[in-house]
Amino acid sequence: MKEVKIGILGLGVVAQGFLEMLTSQKQKIEAQKGIKLIVSKVLVREGEEKTTIANKYGFELVTDVKKITEDDEISIVIELMGRVHPAKEFIKQALENKKHVVTANKDLLAQEGLELITIAKENQVGLYYEASVAGAIPILRTLATSYFADNIQQLTGIVNGTTNFMLTKMFEEAWTYEQALQAAQEAGFAESDPTNDVDGIDAAYKLIILARFAFGVNLTLEQLTIQGIRQIHPLDVSGAQQLGYTIKLLGSLIKKDHHLTACVQPTFVPDTHLLSSVKNELNGIFLKSDGIGESFHYGPGAGALPTGTSVLADVLTIVDRQLDGSATARFNPYQQPVHLEKDPEKTNAYFISLSPQIERKISEVQAELQTTFPKTIAQVQEATNQVALYVVTEQLTEAQLAELLAELTNYGEHHQPLQLMEV
Amino acid sequence: MKEVKIGILGLGVVAQGFLEMLTSQKQKIEAQKGIKLIVSKVLVREGEEKTTIANKYGFELVTDVKKITEDDEISIVIELMGRVHPAKEFIKQALENKKHVVTANKDLLAQEGLELITIAKENQVGLYYEASVAGAIPILRTLATSYFADNIQQLTGIVNGTTNFMLTKMFEEAWTYEQALQAAQEAGFAESDPTNDVDGIDAAYKLIILARFAFGVNLTLEQLTIQGIRQIHPLDVSGAQQLGYTIKLLGSLIKKDHHLTACVQPTFVPDTHLLSSVKNELNGIFLKSDGIGESFHYGPGAGALPTGTSVLADVLTIVDRQLDGSATARFNPYQQPVHLEKDPEKTNAYFISLSPQIERKISEVQAELQTTFPKTIAQVQEATNQVALYVVTEQLTEAQLAELLAELTNYGEHHQPLQLMEV
Ligand SMILES: NC(=O)c1ccc[n+]([C@@H]2O[C@H](COP(=O)([O-])OP(=O)(O)OC[C@H]3O[C@@H](n4cnc5c(N)ncnc54)[C@H](OP(=O)(O)O)[C@@H]3O)[C@@H](O)[C@H]2O)c1
Ligand SMILES: NC(=O)c1ccc[n+]([C@@H]2O[C@H](COP(=O)([O-])OP(=O)(O)OC[C@H]3O[C@@H](n4cnc5c(N)ncnc54)[C@H](OP(=O)(O)O)[C@@H]3O)[C@@H](O)[C@H]2O)c1
Repeated sequence: MKEVKIGILGLGVVAQGFLEMLTSQKQKIEAQKGIKLIVSKVLVREGEEKTTIANKYGFELVTDVKKITEDDEISIVIELMGRVHPAKEFIKQALENKKHVVTANKDLLAQEGLELITIAKENQVGLYYEASVAGAIPILRTLATSYFADNIQQLTGIVNGTTNFMLTKMFEEAWTYEQALQAAQEAGFAESDPTNDVDGIDAAYKLIILARFAFGVNLTLEQLTIQGIRQIHPLDVSGAQQLGYTIKLLGSLIKKDHHLTACVQPTFVPDTHLLSSVKNELNGIFLKSDGIGESFHYGPGAGALPTGTSVLADVLTIVDRQLDGSATARFNPYQQPVHLEKDPEKTNAYFISLSPQIERKISEVQAELQTTFPKTIAQVQEATNQVALYVVTEQLTEAQLAELLAELTNYGEHHQPLQLMEV
Repeated sequence: MKEVKIGILGLGVVAQGFLEMLTSQKQKIEAQKGIKLIVSKVLVREGEEKTTIANKYGFELVTDVKKITEDDEISIVIELMGRVHPAKEFIKQALENKKHVVTANKDLLAQEGLELITIAKENQVGLYYEASVAGAIPILRTLATSYFADNIQQLTGIVNGTTNFMLTKMFEEAWTYEQALQAAQEAGFAESDPTNDVDGIDAAYKLIILARFAFGVNLTLEQLTIQGIRQIHPLDVSGAQQLGYTIKLLGSLIKKDHHLTACVQPTFVPDTHLLSSVKNELNGIFLKSDGIGESFHYGPGAGALPTGTSVLADVLTIVDRQLDGSATARFNPYQQPVHLEKDPEKTNAYFISLSPQIERKISEVQAELQTTFPKTIAQVQEATNQVALYVVTEQLTEAQLAELLAELTNYGEHHQPLQLMEV
């Protein structure tokens, strides 16, 4: 039977999930595809004690990456170390040595993807990274195949499991942001420095990769509007519940004509929308397009086995293409000229909660506000068991929102305005 | 630019959706893939007046299929006529003349798929039929790629749009079965003879195709347990609503060890389950597997543009592989020995509604029933505004169910028992 040798860089959570899936699916792969996948070497850090795992799976531990990237027998390198450096340099070495590469590294692919893709093309080898976005949801493959023949108008997704877990707990258990963060850290979702998750950076990286496949554009972090979940106040949570919404950290890409808006922000999602049913650490992506219409893609965004399975599927794609005798590697070829929009006339509807300084009748406040903002205030409601106001606006421009916020200071301290999802 | 010529058999709803998508995506396809897709000939019936469409898109109308299957310039044939015959013979001719075939014909692929796949393999051409199951949801591609490296335990889906539309109306508008059927016919979902839809045959065909990709088995219609929605009583609907369920026609494939159960039946789905949010004519498929865990795939199951887009994606897959220089066609290779289960010990929980003949206190009836079936009756409830009983059972074998139903005749006329979804 034909053998395909694999080298892995890094032996953490995902690498071990990959090894477990490869072992359990070994027989099926050999029987159906007629090839033997063999992990021959794994890169670990000097001094890292991983001999038990190495013995279990029967591979060699190496501490010098060249032992893998320069091994003529290895044709596929899987990078599962994380971080941009030295992962980038290692992947570059592998590609330049004509090895196909699979990685789950979103930080790297979002920031340095273009350069790596170019190197892979030059060397006519594959570079696959399905697991880097939404874990086990095959969204990149789906965008590159089923949606290639379509025109996508909108992609809206929950692509960060940590913050979704936290928001779920803030809603279902009425935990504060701090309690939810602690639980996420204890459950192993959030790292000790949770900045990338809670500030929306991780979701933004995934959105950058998704934008390449869905809209054929290359965005940088600076081009995105990014807002995290730190500012979410308990009054926002109770207000959302009263009004039939849930709050989700949504990454969204919306195309209108040749303009694209790209942002990550906590958003009021109606309880009736499919995205509201994405709970805990799960991920979900909602698409709107000319041909297919509305579709929804849901599954685990992380975890050893789901992510490992996704990595294994990418490895099998490479193997399939080798077996087919395909001469070249296939890349998502989609490129289109799209302008990022910063449209001052763009409007949104908002929810704003306030802790009023003075005690007054809600009906009075409502009447007063509606005089000042005749068309903007749709609803003013009293919070349960506490003196608080919820303001839900109609469509406002940024300038109108600023005016409203200034006005609201007369009534008390308002919290960060949260957008209502466009449906 | 390289040209790929296409012949289409049949010029109905989906064919026109395909033509519309091809036209709107033409520029993108040419720019990104560097090929021109040209529909050169379309088969219509003798006397069928379609010259306006032919002129609009610039193809030749033919009434003899050989003009397409024996045209050396045509490399891809798309079958969109429907029904088993003569579609089967036409596809056979095309394959034997080394043409790749794309079809949306589930009846044909469910019943005669194996033979056609064999002919395609012998002739080293592709046979693609993503649009035959769940319209625009790329479930076959996903099963053959992302899930190849996984072990699927369960596939449960809403794959018939007509019945899902009807059930949605029966729930949301309190329509009877007959009213819902009429509305489905008026909306163009259900045909004048709705048997295939309402009796679960169409869903069963799709399940047969799904079983090939998810479990590598070839089932026949006779091997499936099939129950349609004709028997659903208004009391079942109100009972489900009171108890926090909705009724969906579910196709399910459940593997335990090397046994598979395959059935199509109306099922009580908890309101909290993702499948309950699949409304109207939409489709949704829920998967459970060892590696990925739980995932959910949602989108339109039919319609001109969604189905046409799916057909176009299959065409592009063929084109990609031609461009790659792939020597052979790729097929879902997955085959595994699985036994269909008819396990007399298999248990299910049921919901049964009754119109009682005698008026008695619910509490009395409940006490009495629980004496006869101590472990089986979990709940007896009074219907709103009408004298009726709802019985919800714990896990029962078929024999125990039969016993219970016999007992229930003492209390009145019971309706068809409906299974509760296993979650
Ligand atoms: N975990 C998930 O569910 C998930 C989901 C999707 C994508 N991903 C991505 O998958 C990648 C791996 O994630 P993970 O969760 O498996 O991380 P992890 O458990 O921290 O594993 C990374 C491993 O690589 C090792 N490593 C780092 N730099 C190395 C170097 N220069 N030489 C040798 N070994 C090195 C690490 O060692 P040290 O601990 O000593 O640094 C660690 O053992 C990341 O890019 C992540 O973003 C993860
Ligand atoms: N509609 C959907 O949304 C959908 C979704 C998924 C899959 N599909 C499948 O896609 C296929 C096409 O469906 P459709 O909705 O497009 O059906 P349709 O509108 O009835 O189109 C079929 C066309 O083919 C013609 N035709 C039938 N036999 C022919 C023959 N021997 N020679 C020439 N023309 C012939 C029909 O003509 P007559 O009307 O004269 O018979 C009709 O114009 C079916 O297999 C269906 O199951 C449809």
